[in-house]
Amino acid sequence: MIIIMHDNAKKEEISAVEEKLTKFGFLTHPIYGEKKTVIGAIGDKRQISMNEILLMSGVEKVVPIMRPYKLASKELKQEKSVIDVGYGVTIGGKKLAVFAGPCAVEGREHFLKMSRLVKDAGANILRGGAFKPRTSPYSFGGLEGEGLKIMREAGDELGMPICTEVMDTRDVELVAEYADIIQIGARNMQNFKLLREVGKCNKPIFLKRGLASTIEEWLMAAEYIMSEGNDRVILCERGIRTYETSTRNTFDVSAIPVTQELTHLPIIADPSHATGNYKYVGAVAKAGIAAGADGIMVEVHDCPECAASDGPQSLKPDKFTELMEELRRIAAAIGREI
Amino acid sequence: MIIIMHDNAKKEEISAVEEKLTKFGFLTHPIYGEKKTVIGAIGDKRQISMNEILLMSGVEKVVPIMRPYKLASKELKQEKSVIDVGYGVTIGGKKLAVFAGPCAVEGREHFLKMSRLVKDAGANILRGGAFKPRTSPYSFGGLEGEGLKIMREAGDELGMPICTEVMDTRDVELVAEYADIIQIGARNMQNFKLLREVGKCNKPIFLKRGLASTIEEWLMAAEYIMSEGNDRVILCERGIRTYETSTRNTFDVSAIPVTQELTHLPIIADPSHATGNYKYVGAVAKAGIAAGADGIMVEVHDCPECAASDGPQSLKPDKFTELMEELRRIAAAIGREI
Amino acid sequence: MIIIMHDNAKKEEISAVEEKLTKFGFLTHPIYGEKKTVIGAIGDKRQISMNEILLMSGVEKVVPIMRPYKLASKELKQEKSVIDVGYGVTIGGKKLAVFAGPCAVEGREHFLKMSRLVKDAGANILRGGAFKPRTSPYSFGGLEGEGLKIMREAGDELGMPICTEVMDTRDVELVAEYADIIQIGARNMQNFKLLREVGKCNKPIFLKRGLASTIEEWLMAAEYIMSEGNDRVILCERGIRTYETSTRNTFDVSAIPVTQELTHLPIIADPSHATGNYKYVGAVAKAGIAAGADGIMVEVHDCPECAASDGPQSLKPDKFTELMEELRRIAAAIGREI
Amino acid sequence: MIIIMHDNAKKEEISAVEEKLTKFGFLTHPIYGEKKTVIGAIGDKRQISMNEILLMSGVEKVVPIMRPYKLASKELKQEKSVIDVGYGVTIGGKKLAVFAGPCAVEGREHFLKMSRLVKDAGANILRGGAFKPRTSPYSFGGLEGEGLKIMREAGDELGMPICTEVMDTRDVELVAEYADIIQIGARNMQNFKLLREVGKCNKPIFLKRGLASTIEEWLMAAEYIMSEGNDRVILCERGIRTYETSTRNTFDVSAIPVTQELTHLPIIADPSHATGNYKYVGAVAKAGIAAGADGIMVEVHDCPECAASDGPQSLKPDKFTELMEELRRIAAAIGREI
Repeated sequence: MIIIMHDNAKKEEISAVEEKLTKFGFLTHPIYGEKKTVIGAIGDKRQISMNEILLMSGVEKVVPIMRPYKLASKELKQEKSVIDVGYGVTIGGKKLAVFAGPCAVEGREHFLKMSRLVKDAGANILRGGAFKPRTSPYSFGGLEGEGLKIMREAGDELGMPICTEVMDTRDVELVAEYADIIQIGARNMQNFKLLREVGKCNKPIFLKRGLASTIEEWLMAAEYIMSEGNDRVILCERGIRTYETSTRNTFDVSAIPVTQELTHLPIIADPSHATGNYKYVGAVAKAGIAAGADGIMVEVHDCPECAASDGPQSLKPDKFTELMEELRRIAAAIGREI
Repeated sequence: MIIIMHDNAKKEEISAVEEKLTKFGFLTHPIYGEKKTVIGAIGDKRQISMNEILLMSGVEKVVPIMRPYKLASKELKQEKSVIDVGYGVTIGGKKLAVFAGPCAVEGREHFLKMSRLVKDAGANILRGGAFKPRTSPYSFGGLEGEGLKIMREAGDELGMPICTEVMDTRDVELVAEYADIIQIGARNMQNFKLLREVGKCNKPIFLKRGLASTIEEWLMAAEYIMSEGNDRVILCERGIRTYETSTRNTFDVSAIPVTQELTHLPIIADPSHATGNYKYVGAVAKAGIAAGADGIMVEVHDCPECAASDGPQSLKPDKFTELMEELRRIAAAIGREI
Repeated sequence: MIIIMHDNAKKEEISAVEEKLTKFGFLTHPIYGEKKTVIGAIGDKRQISMNEILLMSGVEKVVPIMRPYKLASKELKQEKSVIDVGYGVTIGGKKLAVFAGPCAVEGREHFLKMSRLVKDAGANILRGGAFKPRTSPYSFGGLEGEGLKIMREAGDELGMPICTEVMDTRDVELVAEYADIIQIGARNMQNFKLLREVGKCNKPIFLKRGLASTIEEWLMAAEYIMSEGNDRVILCERGIRTYETSTRNTFDVSAIPVTQELTHLPIIADPSHATGNYKYVGAVAKAGIAAGADGIMVEVHDCPECAASDGPQSLKPDKFTELMEELRRIAAAIGREI
Repeated sequence: MIIIMHDNAKKEEISAVEEKLTKFGFLTHPIYGEKKTVIGAIGDKRQISMNEILLMSGVEKVVPIMRPYKLASKELKQEKSVIDVGYGVTIGGKKLAVFAGPCAVEGREHFLKMSRLVKDAGANILRGGAFKPRTSPYSFGGLEGEGLKIMREAGDELGMPICTEVMDTRDVELVAEYADIIQIGARNMQNFKLLREVGKCNKPIFLKRGLASTIEEWLMAAEYIMSEGNDRVILCERGIRTYETSTRNTFDVSAIPVTQELTHLPIIADPSHATGNYKYVGAVAKAGIAAGADGIMVEVHDCPECAASDGPQSLKPDKFTELMEELRRIAAAIGREI
């Protein structure tokens, strides 16, 4: 780490910092400028907290040198992770992943119908909510266990992996029994107990970026999961909160190249939650693929106006089919395929 | 609700909207302007989803008339809630609440010492973390059950209520056994399963505003707790995420008068987490009280540089004592007391 | 407009609102619900300010029905504007616009060299800064008049339109004498005097979105220009300010489909200022085109490390040439061309 | 500056960086860690751009050591600036400044009446808009020259300094002829030509923080003015743009202690523009004073519902008088006076 001293730091203050660092096994390298002194310190950061130095007299700032995540970082593993999610589907390779399905599992017949439709259009993973996080306590919260069984049936019938969210540490075992991919929703990205729990699962984890999380915090959430031994983490950019209100969230398209520079984990674009409006889903899906995402997650519903949740952002099946055609051409233009 | 039709909406589209509303028991009142038609609809919103109308052909926008929360709203209960948290302390009345203590419970001796110090300075509620949400999986996560026992001992010795965070539905019972006030942290403000679980407790809940939550979402989180039967909810403004980086978060001081207009629930200001820097804690604490908060929550530590977490924002005991003097004078200036 | 009364609004309050509206020539349509009364009002909004109603006793909210911009709106003009910028180049049609060049005009030889390079790679409009807005008063502020002459010479030699920024009402005449397209920078998007002044020019205006402007404010800025008689406005999305710091700004890719729904004006994507980092420029440029932008603006420099400004986000000529190849394929995939 | 090299930086890359720095007169101090090399560089930063180093092969990050502003910094001048604004009023001392008046100057009689009222209540500086920045080109833009004369008359009659905004470089001379304090509005905080122009005036400048400006950018705007020779700059916090919509902007109360740590310039709180709602103005004004602001700017109007602009945030005279009483008590509580 690097310690920047105040302009008017006294000699004794500088010495005190050096002594403390030395005591904890650091090698120190003071650099005396005309106005400021800076101290470079080489050693094992786990021996001392940066705060312990920051709060010493005369210290202006402490600049860390190393990134806080290790297992998720590209420095640890340079080649891109290609994650096997079952049924012959992998995420992170040349072929793009297309997660599709209704927001919530609303019933057996409906989900099976939707699943067949999205498969026909080219989706290779089924999505659906059995446990639904809802802003209002009075809204539909999902079919829960029943919903999981319906999804499993659809996955088995069509030979497709299924992805669904878990919201509570108490439900992890149950969800893991049915799902091929376990989703951590945006609101739970820093539910650290839940992250640890899914980290103990032997299932790939679909980790949505928090509503107002930095990319670093997101990778730290991945690190939580990986630190428990589960390295099959798939990132999902789903829009961040900004002052702009014409879309529900602001899709941070730059997060795609940024994460791909920092981590070996694959990334999926979710244009449905990002925009909250079916009119903009297609444009953002195309943008995500063109920017280098490893796939998309799209909500599809045959009757958006009667959907149990998120109707306004759901694509009708024919629009989804059209979008898939466009995405195939864009994927080809950049050397990927669907 | 009010339905605003597109400029070029056709007669048939307008009729279709009216018919659907009528079918669900609404009385409709179309208003034909020169360019636009607007339909007022009176009825029971639970019979139909706004989306069902929004997605009809020719509809531009649907404007809700009622606020989404009921139990938390001032329309339901006009007088301010004064919440009894035990040991003769109430929150929401003339006397201000002062929650103080170290960020994390670090050990028995230390916590008892800190507790006595903050009591002497004028605090009336003890705070401390037994379960700690940490951005990094490699950071200290709290003493957990052991920490709860230490806090209880301090509360019993000093005759003060204790407030501590719960992060996992599986720990609610345990925390409720020891704590007088259960805290829901900012990162869990929309952990809906946890909200329901603490809603079933017979303990006051200290509900921190989410990192990037709107005031409406915050009141909906309170509504979750209240909808389970627990109406003793205390709000806590602890700073929101903005683009400004000179403080850890941006303390939204206006949230104090805004919540006090919308809800009967009391509100506490947390200048420590809002600023992340002990130098600014005093100014923001004074601002919070002057703006009408019902109290403050402040982190105090005798050795911030060796604190297990949040050292940089902790006040040393003598600074806390000085601040309490100033707060007493400000409280008096606005007709409150400490 | 629609007036929503408070739950407990009195009869006299409701009548008073109706009377005032009637006095100003509005037709009123009260709708009495179980809890709330709502008044629809049809008339000429210019006769009265919404605030005049909002501040009346018993009024909770006033909801406008009409969008505040007219000339810029798609309701006025449904077909997309195709803007002729000279030298046979149009913006808004099937063929995409590619603005390229160094951030600042640094000297005659250098600018001519850069111009030839970007033309060879496929750019059809030259960009460069003669007047440079700089955060620090001590930074290079541009060659000013000298820079304009250099740009003009390059434009004439290569038969390409040139685009450059004006920052001061006093310079509009001078810039208009040399430039084919006049840029209003992000920091001046609400410099209303400057907007009016360029509105009086007979030149297309390149209007960058403000750092933290909503799409509505941006279209109101376009309206300012258009209200002076100049309807050749080209929008440019260049990233907005958010809490995320891994890129300089956050490119709001959804702004492309949103503006294309609301206005007939064309839109250009600027990935250079949005990301502030050459590593991410390509991904965001591709995303912008895939999302439906009418072109891009990219900074190109043969020696980014010696650029007078914005070096870190400038592409080297060979990278720009490669990017153009990819953009051509993506454009083809969505039915556009470069 | 400090140069942090990539984990896998090669020896030649490290040497190349050192050579370039040496060539420009820097003394370099490389520090070789187990994984990373860091280079401390001492010298005159004006000799080389940080980008020139940042873009060299193997460089990960360049960390500046010095703050970018000098004249505005507390390092240059430790004691607080007390700015004389005429008529015996100073800003930055023990006595607080109270700027009050209507948003816009609407007419002679009205402005004189308002001025007398606010003086009686305890205001010591008159505020009013002669040139008004308006989001819509169709809104009232101010009485301009006529408004300036009216303000001057009121100032002369009551023996009070007047503060009014200038929006255009072409109007600086005119405004300076009438006003005692010249305001730079939030939307023009980075209108660098205007900053330079008012820097050449011999009048105190009231510099509002930009809508989405960081504190550092704000101090750089002050630096622009000061670099032209005018060191009488008064900062004004007026709320920043965030995702929260229940107030027009979010008043950043922490900006008060933060600026007071970084600069010697005084700071004023503007609760009117920050909240946009008269109901919250009082709470935020009190918070600003309690947090240490050197005064407030408040909009007062006897008929907010007929105000030409910003009615909803204007206090009626009696409410302003009441607020002044409370502010006097709070000021006394913290050792200031009104």
